[in-house]
Amino acid sequence: MLPELPDITDDALSARLRQRLDDLTKPPGSLGRLEDVAHRIGCILGTEVPALHQPQLVVFAADHGLTAHGVSAWPAEVTAQMVENMLAGGAAVSVLARLHGLTLTVADCGVGRDLLPRPGLVVCKSARGSADALNGPAMTPQQCAGQIAAGAALVRTLPGNALLLGEMGIGNSAAAALLMSGLTGLDIAACTGPGAGLDADGVARKVAVLRRVQARHADARTPLDMLAAYGGLEIATMTGAVLQAAAERRVIVVDGFICTAAVAVAAALRPHVLQRCIWSHRGAEPGHAAWLRHLGAEPLLELGLRLGEGSGAALCWPLLQSACALLSQMARFSTTDVSRRSPSGAAGA
Amino acid sequence: MLPELPDITDDALSARLRQRLDDLTKPPGSLGRLEDVAHRIGCILGTEVPALHQPQLVVFAADHGLTAHGVSAWPAEVTAQMVENMLAGGAAVSVLARLHGLTLTVADCGVGRDLLPRPGLVVCKSARGSADALNGPAMTPQQCAGQIAAGAALVRTLPGNALLLGEMGIGNSAAAALLMSGLTGLDIAACTGPGAGLDADGVARKVAVLRRVQARHADARTPLDMLAAYGGLEIATMTGAVLQAAAERRVIVVDGFICTAAVAVAAALRPHVLQRCIWSHRGAEPGHAAWLRHLGAEPLLELGLRLGEGSGAALCWPLLQSACALLSQMARFSTTDVSRRSPSGAAGA
Repeated sequence: MLPELPDITDDALSARLRQRLDDLTKPPGSLGRLEDVAHRIGCILGTEVPALHQPQLVVFAADHGLTAHGVSAWPAEVTAQMVENMLAGGAAVSVLARLHGLTLTVADCGVGRDLLPRPGLVVCKSARGSADALNGPAMTPQQCAGQIAAGAALVRTLPGNALLLGEMGIGNSAAAALLMSGLTGLDIAACTGPGAGLDADGVARKVAVLRRVQARHADARTPLDMLAAYGGLEIATMTGAVLQAAAERRVIVVDGFICTAAVAVAAALRPHVLQRCIWSHRGAEPGHAAWLRHLGAEPLLELGLRLGEGSGAALCWPLLQSACALLSQMARFSTTDVSRRSPSGAAGA
Repeated sequence: MLPELPDITDDALSARLRQRLDDLTKPPGSLGRLEDVAHRIGCILGTEVPALHQPQLVVFAADHGLTAHGVSAWPAEVTAQMVENMLAGGAAVSVLARLHGLTLTVADCGVGRDLLPRPGLVVCKSARGSADALNGPAMTPQQCAGQIAAGAALVRTLPGNALLLGEMGIGNSAAAALLMSGLTGLDIAACTGPGAGLDADGVARKVAVLRRVQARHADARTPLDMLAAYGGLEIATMTGAVLQAAAERRVIVVDGFICTAAVAVAAALRPHVLQRCIWSHRGAEPGHAAWLRHLGAEPLLELGLRLGEGSGAALCWPLLQSACALLSQMARFSTTDVSRRSPSGAAGA
């Protein structure tokens, strides 16, 4: 069903990018991680002078049946309220998107309450929230495939060459924890954290609920089976969006724990997805660091963020812009009269 | 000689800032370090809705007599070449300043070669490079005081409410290492690193030279004595700029190892300087992490940068803008209908 995703490794381009980075008027390697970012964006976009344009931040939003069992510190109606807040321009991601020149789209992938149509809102929902994963799968296999297709279709309508991931969904750190445990083999306790603000007792209750969910779905073994079993609708939609963006060689900027879940499912299906990703930040959710390690992902920021929404991806965006600008606009040793370092490594010694 | 610097602690304002941060429509604390940044900028600017305007990035540039002894991987003439490159728009800091809306000024505090006057260049030099610290003080006490005064005078001419620090000076990581050792009491070997690219043998030679410099200036015990003994002209000028910016309650954005030296000297003279500082990044120079710990400074970025120029301060700038925008533009629980978290910490439990 899903198309193949080609390996974009290009040794000649990679070497030309490294050569250009070393020709910039600075000590070799002195821009640290920014040089890796410039190199990666160049490889994704297939050019030595990559230029990012019309960046799209999409917030994938949905509700979760599992919230009936107290897996979040916040009432489920907050999902719809926060979507309204995002569209009205008052949420953190709204402010950051405005400041950093990102087009913000909210995708209603399954919010519990229907929202009035308006600019910036795209509806691609198959239900008003996922089903309760304790009683059966969060989504039927057909529903899951439909959400993946909807995410891919959404990306096809978006301009630009960069997709920044965001999400909103009370209860979605529970779904992400279940996916993490299923995909990595780590115990669910190592994958479960406070989400948007549970206390220690709340986390313990959440772990207990998630163990029962795992027992209920012991037969879910493939990434798609797990995605359908655990949800959520927004993670499935984001998975489809990631696969489509990867196929189009867009730069994919991953936000926090929930977005990592969608990318991990996509990468389990099509490993070359990871070649197209920039990891924006290591969040405060305890499982995030371990999951990033598992994926070989080294994020750019570590600011103790635990908001989601795409806030980390948006905060990281100026670093991507900076990396591309440095690569394309800095003077080069080969075309200016700045002296190179002495071969011995110590001038005048 | 130096004016006193008042303590800007304001418990009432601090409490109002915390209250406003907790009233923003997000889980309390979920913006992590950005909330601390917003709080600090609010405290510096004395308002709950701080707005940064006309940010000034000043690159303090000078040459160092000690380069005659092979303490850098680069020839000394690179200082002047890189200043030309900065003014021509081709250096990393030029690209980043342009991208992020920072006004770039290069202050010639003692470059070895005189530069043609042009927009963006300010001359405040008392010599074409500092004297060789192995033979005597890098600056006379009068010269050092004059550079401090010149830095303060420069800041008085600049608009805006934020000063971003940058520097250029082949050999200046040697001067900074000497100041670090003198101010912290750490052994010079723990303060010395490759700078812009020495290999291990080069670092060992650099440490040996710096030990001889320390022996030569065993009588330099006050911060000002050490600054005059070790240099450089750009660090002295930056120290004056920092003291002036602090007196005017500008937000001071500190770059890497060399800028930390100027702030550390300023803070040794006037400890409340540290209340006005945002630390942009932890650089790759080995001593930087220890010096930041010593100063109680927790930087925002850790990207393996070792370029200087103010590149880390410039890269960090969008995070400061983001923090201020979030504080002033996000919707608040008290004025919208987003539900707060349930008091129990676990909804529906």
